[in-house]
Amino acid sequence: MSGTNSERKLIAEGPAIILVEPQLGENIGMVARAMANFGLAELRLVKPRDGWPSEKARSAASKADHVIDATQVFETLEEAVADLNFVYATTARERYGFKPVRSPVTAADTLRAKFKDGERTGILFGRERWGLSNEEVALADEIVTFPVNPAFASLNIAQAVLLMSYEWMKTGIEDLSATAFDPVTQRPSTKEQVFGLFDHLEEALDSRGYFHPPAKKPKMVDNLRAVISRRGFSEQEISVFRGVISSLDRFPRKWPRKAVPRQKKAADAGEIEGNDGE
Amino acid sequence: MSGTNSERKLIAEGPAIILVEPQLGENIGMVARAMANFGLAELRLVKPRDGWPSEKARSAASKADHVIDATQVFETLEEAVADLNFVYATTARERYGFKPVRSPVTAADTLRAKFKDGERTGILFGRERWGLSNEEVALADEIVTFPVNPAFASLNIAQAVLLMSYEWMKTGIEDLSATAFDPVTQRPSTKEQVFGLFDHLEEALDSRGYFHPPAKKPKMVDNLRAVISRRGFSEQEISVFRGVISSLDRFPRKWPRKAVPRQKKAADAGEIEGNDGE
Repeated sequence: MSGTNSERKLIAEGPAIILVEPQLGENIGMVARAMANFGLAELRLVKPRDGWPSEKARSAASKADHVIDATQVFETLEEAVADLNFVYATTARERYGFKPVRSPVTAADTLRAKFKDGERTGILFGRERWGLSNEEVALADEIVTFPVNPAFASLNIAQAVLLMSYEWMKTGIEDLSATAFDPVTQRPSTKEQVFGLFDHLEEALDSRGYFHPPAKKPKMVDNLRAVISRRGFSEQEISVFRGVISSLDRFPRKWPRKAVPRQKKAADAGEIEGNDGE
Repeated sequence: MSGTNSERKLIAEGPAIILVEPQLGENIGMVARAMANFGLAELRLVKPRDGWPSEKARSAASKADHVIDATQVFETLEEAVADLNFVYATTARERYGFKPVRSPVTAADTLRAKFKDGERTGILFGRERWGLSNEEVALADEIVTFPVNPAFASLNIAQAVLLMSYEWMKTGIEDLSATAFDPVTQRPSTKEQVFGLFDHLEEALDSRGYFHPPAKKPKMVDNLRAVISRRGFSEQEISVFRGVISSLDRFPRKWPRKAVPRQKKAADAGEIEGNDGE
């Protein structure tokens, strides 16, 4: 999915992402990319195994250079969080501690509230193999855990960062049903336009003896209108539809019919009387 | 983050994930893993570039074998969605069409409602390089797009699948603030226990001349009590706290004081009178 665009506003604010002893440069890069996707920019590494800077990280970051360039490296977790006011630790394992455990939604809400209050916050992520130690979790204020499939709970580090970044981004959006772009606006049709379609179609069909036998015509018309009304066509769609009817109604074929597979009848489809009249 | 556990319930239901012409086996594997993390199990591939089965996919799936083993391969997208009732297309690019565009939250709600009604649903994801063609999007009922950073909108395919799978999982959870595990339950303290702590601490301090000069004692006691009350200590915490006071109060040091850096005074910390009495 492409879409990187340097002319658009680059969002770069919010909690620091702190990776404790990350092993693979590729994972650090994918973390940076996930952060950039959802508007986070401050990456901190505690003792990355293969050192820093890392070309593998830069390459895996897929141009999230602003995150890679600003990444800070620390010798200890204590130093990495020293300037922060509030820190979450992420963990998949149950911890026998007293620390509050939050869902990503709740944690993101808390982080956004603290951000608005001017607090500096961070989220800790552990090693690829075994996460955070109990001593490291103890340095955080609260715990976040993900609502994963109990039998398949192992989340890749970049994916864990992605989910937290995504939930963070969502807390900045007022209407969660809103989308970055919308479909082309269509005016809803008026009843007059719908009735015009009815008349147009029924006249074209009537002129071909479609409503047969005549005694059944009222019921057949009702069914036909029900099928059309249910769709809630827009003005534009009604216009397309009437063009189709005009074409079928007015013009002769230019070449003979091709064989088209006949529609299978669904056993319980509640077939509408009079509308399979071919 | 480890946590895979074959003794726990494996969730495997919900919409099919359909990858159109995926290129890298690694990506297919990471998609399978993301699906398994959030309880999806039905993976369909349309013309995977490097064929199927793929050892690279199996390896990247990190033991999501139930997804890899059940993966189906199709020659065309039409065949891949033939048995489905409702299909979403994911896209990062704006499309100039009439199709409704939904956020992941709205789309997941819709998919859950259709799942409950017994409908079969699917979500289309495009090629790594350029996503879905307009003709492919046209085969879907609606579009999903992600609330990404406008200047950094390029989502990896496995991460796009992860987000939709995660939102799907969340629609199955009644209380979004609930977590898979909880902290050790702590009984809130009663007021009697809090007052017991006040008395214990104040007596120990008073016996050392802490409340000085005597005229300021009432104000100093108020401040001290305010600091303690604000924390909402639990029963267990009060018990820990009283142990600490007892130890400091009753027993002599066994070795001389070490130098400890003096706490920096915050300029605007609203310093509480009488409590920096060392």
